[in-house]
Amino acid sequence: MSAIKVESRKRLVIVTGRAHPELAEQIAAELETELVETELRTFANGEIYARYGESLRGSDVFIVQSHSAPINEWLMEQLIMIDAAKRASAKRITAVAPFYPYARQDKKGRGREPISARLVADLFTAAGADRIMSVDLHAAQIQGYFDGPVDHLFAMPVLLEYFSSRKGPDLTIVSPDMGRVRVADVWSDRLSAPLAIIHKRRDPKVANQVSVHEIVGEVEGRDCLIVDDMIDTGGTIVKAAEALKKNGAKSVVVAATHAVFSSPAVERLQSEFIDEVVVTDTLPIPPEHRWDRLTVLPIAPLIARAIHEVFDDGSVTSMFDGAA
Amino acid sequence: MSAIKVESRKRLVIVTGRAHPELAEQIAAELETELVETELRTFANGEIYARYGESLRGSDVFIVQSHSAPINEWLMEQLIMIDAAKRASAKRITAVAPFYPYARQDKKGRGREPISARLVADLFTAAGADRIMSVDLHAAQIQGYFDGPVDHLFAMPVLLEYFSSRKGPDLTIVSPDMGRVRVADVWSDRLSAPLAIIHKRRDPKVANQVSVHEIVGEVEGRDCLIVDDMIDTGGTIVKAAEALKKNGAKSVVVAATHAVFSSPAVERLQSEFIDEVVVTDTLPIPPEHRWDRLTVLPIAPLIARAIHEVFDDGSVTSMFDGAA
Amino acid sequence: MSAIKVESRKRLVIVTGRAHPELAEQIAAELETELVETELRTFANGEIYARYGESLRGSDVFIVQSHSAPINEWLMEQLIMIDAAKRASAKRITAVAPFYPYARQDKKGRGREPISARLVADLFTAAGADRIMSVDLHAAQIQGYFDGPVDHLFAMPVLLEYFSSRKGPDLTIVSPDMGRVRVADVWSDRLSAPLAIIHKRRDPKVANQVSVHEIVGEVEGRDCLIVDDMIDTGGTIVKAAEALKKNGAKSVVVAATHAVFSSPAVERLQSEFIDEVVVTDTLPIPPEHRWDRLTVLPIAPLIARAIHEVFDDGSVTSMFDGAA
Amino acid sequence: MSAIKVESRKRLVIVTGRAHPELAEQIAAELETELVETELRTFANGEIYARYGESLRGSDVFIVQSHSAPINEWLMEQLIMIDAAKRASAKRITAVAPFYPYARQDKKGRGREPISARLVADLFTAAGADRIMSVDLHAAQIQGYFDGPVDHLFAMPVLLEYFSSRKGPDLTIVSPDMGRVRVADVWSDRLSAPLAIIHKRRDPKVANQVSVHEIVGEVEGRDCLIVDDMIDTGGTIVKAAEALKKNGAKSVVVAATHAVFSSPAVERLQSEFIDEVVVTDTLPIPPEHRWDRLTVLPIAPLIARAIHEVFDDGSVTSMFDGAA
Amino acid sequence: MSAIKVESRKRLVIVTGRAHPELAEQIAAELETELVETELRTFANGEIYARYGESLRGSDVFIVQSHSAPINEWLMEQLIMIDAAKRASAKRITAVAPFYPYARQDKKGRGREPISARLVADLFTAAGADRIMSVDLHAAQIQGYFDGPVDHLFAMPVLLEYFSSRKGPDLTIVSPDMGRVRVADVWSDRLSAPLAIIHKRRDPKVANQVSVHEIVGEVEGRDCLIVDDMIDTGGTIVKAAEALKKNGAKSVVVAATHAVFSSPAVERLQSEFIDEVVVTDTLPIPPEHRWDRLTVLPIAPLIARAIHEVFDDGSVTSMFDGAA
Amino acid sequence: MSAIKVESRKRLVIVTGRAHPELAEQIAAELETELVETELRTFANGEIYARYGESLRGSDVFIVQSHSAPINEWLMEQLIMIDAAKRASAKRITAVAPFYPYARQDKKGRGREPISARLVADLFTAAGADRIMSVDLHAAQIQGYFDGPVDHLFAMPVLLEYFSSRKGPDLTIVSPDMGRVRVADVWSDRLSAPLAIIHKRRDPKVANQVSVHEIVGEVEGRDCLIVDDMIDTGGTIVKAAEALKKNGAKSVVVAATHAVFSSPAVERLQSEFIDEVVVTDTLPIPPEHRWDRLTVLPIAPLIARAIHEVFDDGSVTSMFDGAA
Repeated sequence: MSAIKVESRKRLVIVTGRAHPELAEQIAAELETELVETELRTFANGEIYARYGESLRGSDVFIVQSHSAPINEWLMEQLIMIDAAKRASAKRITAVAPFYPYARQDKKGRGREPISARLVADLFTAAGADRIMSVDLHAAQIQGYFDGPVDHLFAMPVLLEYFSSRKGPDLTIVSPDMGRVRVADVWSDRLSAPLAIIHKRRDPKVANQVSVHEIVGEVEGRDCLIVDDMIDTGGTIVKAAEALKKNGAKSVVVAATHAVFSSPAVERLQSEFIDEVVVTDTLPIPPEHRWDRLTVLPIAPLIARAIHEVFDDGSVTSMFDGAA
Repeated sequence: MSAIKVESRKRLVIVTGRAHPELAEQIAAELETELVETELRTFANGEIYARYGESLRGSDVFIVQSHSAPINEWLMEQLIMIDAAKRASAKRITAVAPFYPYARQDKKGRGREPISARLVADLFTAAGADRIMSVDLHAAQIQGYFDGPVDHLFAMPVLLEYFSSRKGPDLTIVSPDMGRVRVADVWSDRLSAPLAIIHKRRDPKVANQVSVHEIVGEVEGRDCLIVDDMIDTGGTIVKAAEALKKNGAKSVVVAATHAVFSSPAVERLQSEFIDEVVVTDTLPIPPEHRWDRLTVLPIAPLIARAIHEVFDDGSVTSMFDGAA
Repeated sequence: MSAIKVESRKRLVIVTGRAHPELAEQIAAELETELVETELRTFANGEIYARYGESLRGSDVFIVQSHSAPINEWLMEQLIMIDAAKRASAKRITAVAPFYPYARQDKKGRGREPISARLVADLFTAAGADRIMSVDLHAAQIQGYFDGPVDHLFAMPVLLEYFSSRKGPDLTIVSPDMGRVRVADVWSDRLSAPLAIIHKRRDPKVANQVSVHEIVGEVEGRDCLIVDDMIDTGGTIVKAAEALKKNGAKSVVVAATHAVFSSPAVERLQSEFIDEVVVTDTLPIPPEHRWDRLTVLPIAPLIARAIHEVFDDGSVTSMFDGAA
Repeated sequence: MSAIKVESRKRLVIVTGRAHPELAEQIAAELETELVETELRTFANGEIYARYGESLRGSDVFIVQSHSAPINEWLMEQLIMIDAAKRASAKRITAVAPFYPYARQDKKGRGREPISARLVADLFTAAGADRIMSVDLHAAQIQGYFDGPVDHLFAMPVLLEYFSSRKGPDLTIVSPDMGRVRVADVWSDRLSAPLAIIHKRRDPKVANQVSVHEIVGEVEGRDCLIVDDMIDTGGTIVKAAEALKKNGAKSVVVAATHAVFSSPAVERLQSEFIDEVVVTDTLPIPPEHRWDRLTVLPIAPLIARAIHEVFDDGSVTSMFDGAA
Repeated sequence: MSAIKVESRKRLVIVTGRAHPELAEQIAAELETELVETELRTFANGEIYARYGESLRGSDVFIVQSHSAPINEWLMEQLIMIDAAKRASAKRITAVAPFYPYARQDKKGRGREPISARLVADLFTAAGADRIMSVDLHAAQIQGYFDGPVDHLFAMPVLLEYFSSRKGPDLTIVSPDMGRVRVADVWSDRLSAPLAIIHKRRDPKVANQVSVHEIVGEVEGRDCLIVDDMIDTGGTIVKAAEALKKNGAKSVVVAATHAVFSSPAVERLQSEFIDEVVVTDTLPIPPEHRWDRLTVLPIAPLIARAIHEVFDDGSVTSMFDGAA
Repeated sequence: MSAIKVESRKRLVIVTGRAHPELAEQIAAELETELVETELRTFANGEIYARYGESLRGSDVFIVQSHSAPINEWLMEQLIMIDAAKRASAKRITAVAPFYPYARQDKKGRGREPISARLVADLFTAAGADRIMSVDLHAAQIQGYFDGPVDHLFAMPVLLEYFSSRKGPDLTIVSPDMGRVRVADVWSDRLSAPLAIIHKRRDPKVANQVSVHEIVGEVEGRDCLIVDDMIDTGGTIVKAAEALKKNGAKSVVVAATHAVFSSPAVERLQSEFIDEVVVTDTLPIPPEHRWDRLTVLPIAPLIARAIHEVFDDGSVTSMFDGAA
């Protein structure tokens, strides 16, 4: 006989970059496995070095990295890890980016700008990623920037579960600006609560400068829940909270998936106008960025379940519990 | 001497598919040139045949096609024309698609769906297009679906010019649903008019079914201008108009870039609730789809100017007069 | 232990477009399975929508579509289905196109023409197909247009089996024109019957216009079997049949793989000069296109066997029973 | 001023491999230029080295190579030259292959075979060729194997011009086998001469073994002109000539574009049954392969004209004087 | 007339990232032009934003960036600038990286490592760079990592010019380790000076740890010139200098192209064992990293000349003054 | 149930080209399997034909070829075999090239040269190879030329094992030139023997011409072991041996991985200055190229072990026993 035949086996491997190793460890623990040890170092001139501690041959490799600041460091580290996995004969490589880097640069606002969210997808491809897994993309269209499967997970069930037991009769869902109305709409549906909108205008030429205009909808005497996909510097959120309180809101709680928490977000969010902030840990939140009225929900179970279904060829669709 | 040297010259060529040849003719006329004749036929079994009547060697070729119904026919025709131009040694090929096909399938609403807007960009690339030119993309992110330059033109100046002379003191800009609020916001800015929003919900599982909820903002006694990027079957628009009139609007005018006008749009739009409909001719509007209260503004001057600037390496950025 | 290991399993999935669902159903039945349900709709403006009813993760997916008129609709539908399967993490995607679209545009007859058969292969690749399966390609070179495996099946055994029991001593194989002589040659070999050729010339500038010249070989008193790969409008075939009968042929039977049957083929083929037409159902043949002297042989068993061997890594070579 | 602007100039460069430098020299002479000197060496272990003697920056480079035996050497040499030109910043690279290598392996005759003609196109692309120029491709479909422009030149006008003055009233065009009937058909048209066909069968499993069967058409007392695209070992041609003479042909002349002349072609073609052999010099014909009844027509003028038109963005379509 | 024809013009544009703008300004000044203004900002979470101040349509764009620490920031900035230039219809994009990032990770020293130097080339390609320009690549093979033209400039003439006037009769060229012997060999040739080698061994598992062994060659009473391509932390260099002085060297001067100067290089290099350090400014050297015995030679003239020749299609080969 | 599920199986297939079939046979024997029979022929004009004797569907195929002279023939043969395997639906294709062709053309020594080692990697990719396996690459950077996994095997353990038992107290490792010092360094480490270097200079413009200068290190009375990666014409080696003997070496043995043995290597190596030559059989060594003082070590066990580990997803890293 001129050939050798054996049964095929699949091997799941999870590795992590240095941005948020706790998240990957929790994911591995959920899956009752351990991370494959990876040597990661930064040389004196800033170049990053990576080497896997075990063979990845024929493995289904998930490379987890959270894209917090310094975001370009962590992106390059993940690209280098993907390259190393490709050259180490991994069978399939999934870049797990719970917070997709450069997601807000998803289109050309004006001429002569980049579309960096597309560039990031191309960099993942160039390095050798076969698939991407991410949570609550800033724009659902980003899925289309990658020429391959993207597992787009929704954190809403995680957040909803937290609020469903806390929800009172006076709840109102608030969209902090026009651009997030659709997400607020879904929350309003799920929690059977009325909707209010903060109508503000961004100056397209200056980032982070907003001018709150007016509140559309009833907020007086209401428990207001501001929902957003991410909190970056917190400016919009705090101004929205202030406007709500000044218009008679009974309480103001903020729910968001991604706690970017760029300075001075942590200071701002501790404002008297905000009663609670609820986020997930798609991004690392160091102890000094935590305060008593901050609730952090673990995202690892969601990602672990998705990885298991991808590895096992089950369906992640059941995790799509929200709207785009 | 071991080489021949000559001056380089550039040659601009415009050709058109069969969907809307008048548009291409007007574009050529604006540029004081003529279309290069192209033989286009459909064989008995539906296969399309194309052949250019002149050499395209070294030319900067713009292949114009409007993607009206039967949209797949016209898309394939354009792809075949691109292939023929590539094999005929065209130097650069721009697919001019004033109305980008499948633009509304720009993301996965649910699992196991395609992202057809990305697929279309990939088909253009596979056929050999170097660049794309389009007007008012349904989502600005579609620019990022093409791995190359996209000239994204805005029809707003064309429409604004029409309205600026007609604008009265009681004008209110109306967004027909939550998803188009940003566009309405820009109109509101430009015309210094207040904003109103129709809050309705789409059932994600059933297309074209909407349920108008309520009007956010003041419309009583106002001249309402509903703005949208396209009018397909007209259902949303007519319901919005009806709601406005029933809430006391003085007049209701509709402005949109793309007149898709799928049946029964033409009947619906002649509704008593709508005083005027203003569109551009990015898509062909046959005489039987026109009525007295329909105003069609020519889009050819805008596209012609853009082609000229692309050919001449000028800047199209000056045409970006709106927001994304 | 830093990795999870499990046995690999393969899963076969067959889905179909809307052109000829009966064929896919018969293929599935042959394989003792069922089609995976697929939602397929055409929106008002002609855009097609697709969504799979089950997870395709890790599956070996065969997407069956017959490219009858409206051929561009069905091609786009298949491309959209391929895109959806790719984004749904299918492991391997085979585009099953029993009748390869645009197969006759397989070269540039003149300058400034496309090579649409190559374009179609590129579109399949762009959408995400890993392999192609087709029956009796118009030119065997089309296999080379796809940069990947092509399972090129031959319908000849299916047709031969039908004729072997009906074959009399006076059989003569007839090639309807110079271009199909090689296929006729193989038939002549297999059935040990003499060969005759109709020598006609096509006008290269006008499609479907032929001018029959003369018959090369003996046909008087013979049972003539005209063989071809497809019957489109039937013009050539009927003129050939007429010439044969007028030259004394005892009977004229036509055998072809692909029943394109563009109008007015059905009328023409019922000519008094033709005693029987035998085709396979690679393309749908609606009841109104059938008549008493038409015999339709099922192609599903051949395709089902090929799919099984592809899925099971057997050899399809044994199906190559004819010459190219 | 933030930019420097200058006029663009184009520079034509022609270089040659070592297979047939005379051809390239003649082409350059026709264009009133000279070849750019190129250092080409073969190292002791057979590896080839190339280096251009002048800068190719921004040039329109034509790399001429004839693919005579040892064909793989010359193909690799051309690929290496293309790589060097690409890395030397040539603006555009055209691989000129008057005789396309591996053209006869243009399809899978049986399973588990390569399609080497497609592979060759892919190798040209991988090395960096932007375009291909070739003469009388064995199958016109090979044009579609390259994903870019192919200038497919026809030698027929060169050959026809030779014969038009020599043509007598008794001329008959002969196709040496079924596969070349279409070419013979075009000759028959152009020279207004009747057609005859040699009906033979190739054993698909054994190369070069043929068994001549019979002559279809009238040859007695005729001046027979056998036409083919190439003469390899000459076996088929000589047997055809013998059959013609034995069936009463008055004279037998052979016309072919490509003089492959693999051993023992030169001996065979000097057969008493052949009165004259007329070929072009797309392939080198050394003095020892020439005899008194061999006429070699120069192909350089045709190629030179095509290069000029490609460089100058004229149309090569006017050179398409034959059928495919 | 169905086409518009105009003369082609070329436009040179130079832009710079934020790592080392002075270098780009000097390059522009050498070329008697100015940089095209570019808006470059870093958002609060570390994401970089870029926008060109002028149209780049049809331009030949050179994007200059020096890859000093933080190297990943500057690499991402350059990639984003390339993406923006591509989408702005630049005709040709050259990434100018005087110090190629990750050049020392040019191979897999052990299994499961990346080849980051190749990855960087792939990232440049993915972003849209057509060409790369770099100075003194750590390994000449890196040129082959990019699938396109690489202008590899040599700084040796710049350094040699400085030393030729200072050179005394007792000069000896010293290679600081075995890996740089070839470069030292070329210096020895050019300056007609004898060669000495420091034979040390690097521990492959620990970076920057070296153990000097012995000096091969005569150094007593000699003016030693240590040559290397870069000085990173300076450890090797200082130990080499110490060994030379302890073995009787009269003076020790160090010459290197790239002044990486990672901490504590600046302190180390001011060692008593080193009389002078001569570098170029391919990387920025802030005032606090300069001391009296440091000589910085400007690299801008070399790069400016190369850019001019690339733009003008001259030959950069004349700049290749050294060996690889 | 709408899908069929079965266990996955893997099948290992080894095939060989005609350059060195004995090696592949030995590899297969080591793995206790047999080669899949492959029909390989060269047509009269030099074109190569390949066809596999068995189905390769779904197989893990290793295509073994040694690149001895005529190296371009064997390279093309391997490319054609890869193409055939790809089209035959092989699951994964590894090009096994024990001696990587064109490895010495790994960079541009001067302008206007190719980088043929990169070209070869691109040709492997274009043909369809997923991975490459090679032994002792001339430059480790060549791994980075292939955009996929490269199994780079080291022959050093094979050679070391031979010498470890023969090693005496007077052993000195000799590098025949500056370029190979690093390899000699590793040998020196492993065998705990001192190092000597032959300092010679190559003329960059003339291949194979060397001028031995001097010996660095102690060789008098020593058993000298010259180590190199390959022996081509043997010129450098023999001159080194002569220099060693003339400087008092007791004995001179040469160890190299690749026995290229281009003429007149075999004559030269039988020089009185060389006591023994030890090589592996990565390249075929015909009986007439063997002499009494030549020892040939089998490389098949190393390659067989690597193939087994690749097929079985084990780790080849354990084979990386040397330095780069």
